[in-house]
Amino acid sequence: MDKKVNILFITADQLRYDSLGITGHPLVRTPNLDALAESGALFSNTFVQSAVCGPSRAAMYTGRYTHNNGVRFNEVPFRPGERTIADYFNDHQYRAALVGRTHFTPITEKYGFEYFAYYDGLPVKDAYSAYPEYLKSNGYSEEDIRYRYWPRELEVIPGQEAYPEDFREAYYPSRIAEEHSDTAYLTNEAIRFIRETGDRPWMLHLSYWKPHLPFSVPEPYHSMYDPKDVPMPRLMPDELKSKPPLQKLFREERRGNFLEDERLLRQIRAVYYGMITQLDDHMGRLLEELKQLGIRDNTLIIFTSDHGEYMGDHYMVEKELFYEQAIHVPLMVSLPGRIKPGTVTESFVETVDLLPTCMEAAGLPIPQAVDGRSLFPLLDGTAASWRQEVFAEWDFQYYHARRQLGLNPDQCKAVMVRNKRWKYVHYSDQPCELYDLENDSDEFNNLADDPQNRSLVHELQLKILDWRLRTEDKSPEVDLTFASYLRDPWST
Amino acid sequence: MDKKVNILFITADQLRYDSLGITGHPLVRTPNLDALAESGALFSNTFVQSAVCGPSRAAMYTGRYTHNNGVRFNEVPFRPGERTIADYFNDHQYRAALVGRTHFTPITEKYGFEYFAYYDGLPVKDAYSAYPEYLKSNGYSEEDIRYRYWPRELEVIPGQEAYPEDFREAYYPSRIAEEHSDTAYLTNEAIRFIRETGDRPWMLHLSYWKPHLPFSVPEPYHSMYDPKDVPMPRLMPDELKSKPPLQKLFREERRGNFLEDERLLRQIRAVYYGMITQLDDHMGRLLEELKQLGIRDNTLIIFTSDHGEYMGDHYMVEKELFYEQAIHVPLMVSLPGRIKPGTVTESFVETVDLLPTCMEAAGLPIPQAVDGRSLFPLLDGTAASWRQEVFAEWDFQYYHARRQLGLNPDQCKAVMVRNKRWKYVHYSDQPCELYDLENDSDEFNNLADDPQNRSLVHELQLKILDWRLRTEDKSPEVDLTFASYLRDPWST
Repeated sequence: MDKKVNILFITADQLRYDSLGITGHPLVRTPNLDALAESGALFSNTFVQSAVCGPSRAAMYTGRYTHNNGVRFNEVPFRPGERTIADYFNDHQYRAALVGRTHFTPITEKYGFEYFAYYDGLPVKDAYSAYPEYLKSNGYSEEDIRYRYWPRELEVIPGQEAYPEDFREAYYPSRIAEEHSDTAYLTNEAIRFIRETGDRPWMLHLSYWKPHLPFSVPEPYHSMYDPKDVPMPRLMPDELKSKPPLQKLFREERRGNFLEDERLLRQIRAVYYGMITQLDDHMGRLLEELKQLGIRDNTLIIFTSDHGEYMGDHYMVEKELFYEQAIHVPLMVSLPGRIKPGTVTESFVETVDLLPTCMEAAGLPIPQAVDGRSLFPLLDGTAASWRQEVFAEWDFQYYHARRQLGLNPDQCKAVMVRNKRWKYVHYSDQPCELYDLENDSDEFNNLADDPQNRSLVHELQLKILDWRLRTEDKSPEVDLTFASYLRDPWST
Repeated sequence: MDKKVNILFITADQLRYDSLGITGHPLVRTPNLDALAESGALFSNTFVQSAVCGPSRAAMYTGRYTHNNGVRFNEVPFRPGERTIADYFNDHQYRAALVGRTHFTPITEKYGFEYFAYYDGLPVKDAYSAYPEYLKSNGYSEEDIRYRYWPRELEVIPGQEAYPEDFREAYYPSRIAEEHSDTAYLTNEAIRFIRETGDRPWMLHLSYWKPHLPFSVPEPYHSMYDPKDVPMPRLMPDELKSKPPLQKLFREERRGNFLEDERLLRQIRAVYYGMITQLDDHMGRLLEELKQLGIRDNTLIIFTSDHGEYMGDHYMVEKELFYEQAIHVPLMVSLPGRIKPGTVTESFVETVDLLPTCMEAAGLPIPQAVDGRSLFPLLDGTAASWRQEVFAEWDFQYYHARRQLGLNPDQCKAVMVRNKRWKYVHYSDQPCELYDLENDSDEFNNLADDPQNRSLVHELQLKILDWRLRTEDKSPEVDLTFASYLRDPWST
């Protein structure tokens, strides 16, 4: 029997689609990720299920939509009984590992992982990680560790101990040296896990925190890109005119005001790109290690991100809402001998597809509870049909904007449907959004109120309703012992 | 401190709204239920969340809609982590009891009840009930017990051991005497529980199987109503013309063909009425017992049904789909000193409201997970607003019709929204239904395809979508320790 395929599932955090060499960025150098994509398949239309950390990862871990797995915001627990990628691979004698961030709660759970090298980025979670101890053993002081995202040059502001809220960290290199950075550390941990696991098949989620803010990166990456050279966002000053009131409030929440300072915005973008090249360098180191260990050809590698980063677009930083900058992510999948090098596919991928793809590569059965579809039939050309639209969800009840709008917590759900040309965002108790992606790829003009689009909007609303009904949690188990009046349920 | 209020929650099975004296039936005598309604409140517009046994009871038990509690068909388990009425009352030192039927799976679970006198009706579940042993101790033979729903006059047909599929049992009295009938037995069990519980506060779900088919009832009830006298259904021969194809198939599933025999139909209706008066007599016995024990004034009594019975209407027997005969049920709520006698309210009640009503009567906090609302503010006139429509759900994936229509299991969900005038039923992959209840109370004419109704249909579809988004399982818990970026979530 053939050796079982190892699964190396890598996520960046807050990496937007257009930030890599292979996805067309004019400045950022990512030779290792480019080579990884060229060794297998690049999926150019991959969308996350929710453009915020915890929900996006929960959809990847369960292969289930947000309304099914229950993680509708950061620090919201899974619905009882949810199974993760680790649980599924455990069933088949894989050694399942997490290295890095989950952003799930309760933080004390290991979500099925046997090997659990947790690091979530924020100092508030340091007690659950070995990284602070690692820094200490490398000579960093308590203060360096606690304020590691504050440059030495700035005075820590009370209430903002984690990092400066005004992005000024971007002007200075990190006080943690490159070789001790969290990106380096997590790569080391991944290599340690792979080496120590030896011949047993393994499934590793390597979950980086970068290029997430704070905009703190060590040299040489801090000075790698000249702020003068960075491309600037395309903006439309009166964009909000056609948008729901929520967007104005959320822009404030997202500190859009800081971005009026062009010098700061250029600096942030340069540092963001530096963090990406830093990540790429460590990717190179990791891939080389797999080669050295002789297991590269027997390892499925998936690389993606949990969501994008506005980087000043729409006058925001970070993520959420449903603009392309937030929901569109890079995805590359490589498995030598199985996936043809240089494959590029434009078909719509949802990130619930990643778990079943890992399962098919490893020969695991795909349970009915999984909402996504394996990407292999798409790559093999054996998929009889494929989705023509993608969906995403968001719940803004936890934000200040909710009360500013006078809404109850249950009135804050939003769902997006996006096909090749149109993107429609439905809010249960807010004005909605419609963008013509073909003629307004910047999504500046909300066309939802245009009477000409009435039947189109209706059609897209129905798509959402029928998607919800179809994908609502599947409870296939009928106890037929006591239901003799049912004839052959579930046989097809 | 006052003595805690006891909860006596009684459900009939398959009792349609218009079958009682107090709800206007011209023939059926129900003096005890009429008096119960007059002692408190009659709710004349009460609708079940799903017109099939298990899902309807699950919504009552959890106070949560079907898409939240997961019991979308008989013998489908609860979603993990669901809490029942028994669990909630246990938390407050009530003694929680079930007497009768649940129709839940797994059948070996007690769903939180401390006292569990299970009886589900069908002989296939006899192993889980003490009723067969009770019959044996009263001199019935093994054969009498096994074939108790087959009259002695008929020969048992192999494959139909539980009861005749052609309704011929209706022509003969049951072979079990009235004093040993399941309705008598369950009433005895309820009285036994109440007596033995003494001063400890209790919550009892008395869950009758009748007037559910088979149409088997002992004398004097079998001959109580003359088939000549029964009102006959109003029918429209070409009704199916405007209906979705599903309805033709479901009518076959529901054995509509037998009902072309007028003599049989009259007989069935007469027996159905007999079963109702039988139930009413035992209600009288139970209520008298409460008085004798001196606890009537300290007991909230709720009486309702899990759904209705077509009784030949729309050429069907039994339930499901969304016609009034199936979804509209009687509801009476009585608590002397708290609810004014003779109250009648036409406001819309959904059966998810029953659990929070019990909770308020007993002084229990109503958890956020509960979708329903206590009916007390409605009775007190303190409700600032009240719902203007009701919703119900159904999943027909388990029926033969699914494959006849060429549908996948996930394409079989239906949702109804009904307001004062209109009823709209949405199928994710089927033609839909719209009825004008004001001008077509029989629901003979499906108006969904009428171009004049396009914007009305659109509006009702949006009601369903927004209801789904708003009521989707509430996961309020955000771990704020690690979410300092959220300002005062959930404070209102």
